[in-house]
Amino acid sequence: MSNEKTAVTPTRKEDFPGWYQEVLTVSDLAEHAPVRGCMVIKPNGYAIWEVIQSILDKKFKSLGVKNAYFPLLIPLSFLEKEAEHVEGFAKESAVVTHTRLEKGADGKLIPTSPLEEPLIIRPTSETIIGASFAKWIESYRDLPMKINQWCNVMRWEMRPRLFLRTSEFLSQEGHTAHASKEEAQKMALDMLKLYADFAENYLAIPVIRGEKSEGERFPGAMNTYTFEAMMQDGKALQMGTAHFMGTNFAKASDIQFLSKDGVREYAHTTSWGVTTRMIGAMVMVHGDDNGVILPPRVAPHQIVIIPFLMKEGDSCEIMNYCLKLKEELESVQYWGRGLSIILDDRELRAGEKSWDQIKKGYPIRIEIGAREMKEGKIPLFLRTKEKKEALYVSKEELKLKISSILDQVQSDLYAKALSYREANTVLVSTQEEFEEIFRKEVNAGRFVLAPFKGDKTLEAEIQKDFGVTIRCIPHNLPPSCHSCLFTKQSNASQVIFAKSY
Amino acid sequence: MSNEKTAVTPTRKEDFPGWYQEVLTVSDLAEHAPVRGCMVIKPNGYAIWEVIQSILDKKFKSLGVKNAYFPLLIPLSFLEKEAEHVEGFAKESAVVTHTRLEKGADGKLIPTSPLEEPLIIRPTSETIIGASFAKWIESYRDLPMKINQWCNVMRWEMRPRLFLRTSEFLSQEGHTAHASKEEAQKMALDMLKLYADFAENYLAIPVIRGEKSEGERFPGAMNTYTFEAMMQDGKALQMGTAHFMGTNFAKASDIQFLSKDGVREYAHTTSWGVTTRMIGAMVMVHGDDNGVILPPRVAPHQIVIIPFLMKEGDSCEIMNYCLKLKEELESVQYWGRGLSIILDDRELRAGEKSWDQIKKGYPIRIEIGAREMKEGKIPLFLRTKEKKEALYVSKEELKLKISSILDQVQSDLYAKALSYREANTVLVSTQEEFEEIFRKEVNAGRFVLAPFKGDKTLEAEIQKDFGVTIRCIPHNLPPSCHSCLFTKQSNASQVIFAKSY
Repeated sequence: MSNEKTAVTPTRKEDFPGWYQEVLTVSDLAEHAPVRGCMVIKPNGYAIWEVIQSILDKKFKSLGVKNAYFPLLIPLSFLEKEAEHVEGFAKESAVVTHTRLEKGADGKLIPTSPLEEPLIIRPTSETIIGASFAKWIESYRDLPMKINQWCNVMRWEMRPRLFLRTSEFLSQEGHTAHASKEEAQKMALDMLKLYADFAENYLAIPVIRGEKSEGERFPGAMNTYTFEAMMQDGKALQMGTAHFMGTNFAKASDIQFLSKDGVREYAHTTSWGVTTRMIGAMVMVHGDDNGVILPPRVAPHQIVIIPFLMKEGDSCEIMNYCLKLKEELESVQYWGRGLSIILDDRELRAGEKSWDQIKKGYPIRIEIGAREMKEGKIPLFLRTKEKKEALYVSKEELKLKISSILDQVQSDLYAKALSYREANTVLVSTQEEFEEIFRKEVNAGRFVLAPFKGDKTLEAEIQKDFGVTIRCIPHNLPPSCHSCLFTKQSNASQVIFAKSY
Repeated sequence: MSNEKTAVTPTRKEDFPGWYQEVLTVSDLAEHAPVRGCMVIKPNGYAIWEVIQSILDKKFKSLGVKNAYFPLLIPLSFLEKEAEHVEGFAKESAVVTHTRLEKGADGKLIPTSPLEEPLIIRPTSETIIGASFAKWIESYRDLPMKINQWCNVMRWEMRPRLFLRTSEFLSQEGHTAHASKEEAQKMALDMLKLYADFAENYLAIPVIRGEKSEGERFPGAMNTYTFEAMMQDGKALQMGTAHFMGTNFAKASDIQFLSKDGVREYAHTTSWGVTTRMIGAMVMVHGDDNGVILPPRVAPHQIVIIPFLMKEGDSCEIMNYCLKLKEELESVQYWGRGLSIILDDRELRAGEKSWDQIKKGYPIRIEIGAREMKEGKIPLFLRTKEKKEALYVSKEELKLKISSILDQVQSDLYAKALSYREANTVLVSTQEEFEEIFRKEVNAGRFVLAPFKGDKTLEAEIQKDFGVTIRCIPHNLPPSCHSCLFTKQSNASQVIFAKSY
């Protein structure tokens, strides 16, 4: 391929949001549904979600978390139990008001049988799960209680973007209750660590862990911990969150336990979740102008084998050779799963297949023609390299070397994303610098690390003036000796400002 | 335990529905949610669903089925596309009419931002998936298309019963499109076979496969295939269905393809599904008056080890012995999974633990005290036998023998269920016999095999008069030479009449 021609138009540089939409189309991951704001997750996209689920689910279970399932619909009176919570979700609720349809005079269906109390489709499940916890927890012996649910969630969205913001999305929400504040807080931080490790080691996305500011906190939480990543347009994406609720939700749902000393106390709760948004992040961090690039450890298939059948007579022999190669590779264990290999035997020209598989982003492509077969050398085209540069490995060595080659692809992806983020993160110590960056660079995103000490009113003003928010107060930073850029108060925290999705 | 005292009150004989509700409580599988008609699937119950999912999902994928995800909400105009379909589901639809909540004058939340077109929560997804198929399918090369979705589904229910009938339930729905009628019909029948094999070989539930009569067919289908089981009260439960749609839904959703001959044709479609109802079936077929009995092949844990710690000094040694036993057993492969073992180390008296685990129905209980440890004999209490009769196996032989002992439990459960069904199935050849059975035995259920040839009006009359329906027209029966019990028409089919859930 020439360097000019790319599979995806527009390119990332020309129009990043346009590129994102197009890359999802050519890689067959997802599409807009006929229902406003909702998406169809196509088989290629859903397969990635299945891998993410299986890895996280094992990690959760190893921490003693058990899966369960709670109702989709939540009575309004439940939502009203926690004041900030209702404030946070009321404006984006899908409300069920009727339970029957009948034909009207014009033959069209109209809703009938109105509900006495309307129900909303869960935007999150703290209140409905809280009602169960209140029943299930009697004494300290029942604690900690650690429950997770894999489910669909709905937050009505006026400006949908596939995977990033849709009215309905798939998610996992963990909810735990503990006897002490310290234990609950540790739980939330442990989950943050688990998620951030997953993002870095599996999705190959470097993340910044930290705490949300007052203005960005989950409605009803004491602390919201977050991990944030930089997309290739320099904007931030919140990858997931873990919340320490204190006793706010325990009081709202009456989750009490009898302590060892025989005293009735409120439990301390947490909740934590990630969603199908992670798939969008992966696309926006790693994709290039030829399509998606899947990190090997979460790719549903790590390798695609394409037989190049030139002459009629070739076919059978080459196909058998490819089949054997596939079987051999599938016996290799890679990060807890057997390698998964596609043998692309579709009735298409080999060149067409190559391009199609490049767009879909499988980490390694193997093209086998008569010559490759004869010479016993296997050409590996790494998706992270130029299309025509193959890495040749002898057939004998392939099984031995393949895992480390895949891990190389994985670490190259991570390193590239990290260096991009570092190149686009600036330390700012005056308000003038801050204004210059966010006023001038309307489309070029940056992470700006700056000292801040203010309240949520100030945060809202900054958002209004510059279109940026505090993404987080990063953990593990040395204490700041600066005063706040805006309020000039001393002992400000270093925070990250950025435009975000 | 004495023979009189049972863990569950009422017993099955005293009050079967009361027993069913109570057995779900003591085994901690599920409970009613605060939302009318909905359930909370507790961790013990959800773990069974996870096993069912993992087994079925592998089987589906081996047939070339791919998972995907489609929107929860369906526009009314979609539902209206297929006349029988809308008829079938309109009266039990949860309708979303608003997308925002605001505080009214009294401070209470009221729904605002009405939708132009109301949306219903999917009762099934033929129409919304059909819209995607219409986009995705262009030519015969795209066929067959085989898609499955694991999801929640809602059909508003006025008389909910946990797992059997709830407004919301979890399910799997497969949807396929084919170039020919024959291929589609075969697909539906292949799925019926897959399901029935799963029910018999994993759930240990003998089922009768067959076709639904006109009155019981899925709204919009040409043929509905079903597999039906008998519960311990003699009533029938429809375990799942597979539908051949002909071109009905292809026409409604405009699913056309270009044939090999270059002609545009409508595809032939199928859909097929099973739900969390399978868990209810398992409980109602195998449970006894001491609780649930889980068939080993779908039990989340096959074995519970209970350390009997009598004297203070015992504890450490016995616990270590039990831990080692657990590890050894976990290395055994059983039906594609490693055995899963619970070591019950709760702070409870051993006797309490035994009873608790009996109620929960794990196939084998191992109780280890100082004597058992010293003698090196492992007492296995099979959940299918009396509580006090242990089967002793030497420690050395345990690993070798455990799989076949579990398989014995599995086949005992199946055999018992089959002989119960056979004992409660009667062949009837006159209307008088039929009336006598269903008039007299108000509570005692029966499967009545009888010749029938009539339409859905007659089916409705029979249902009104006797409270029974045609469960299915069984496959694999010799042709009947009888005339219909009711219409006296010749060449009637043998059908199964029964009361049902």
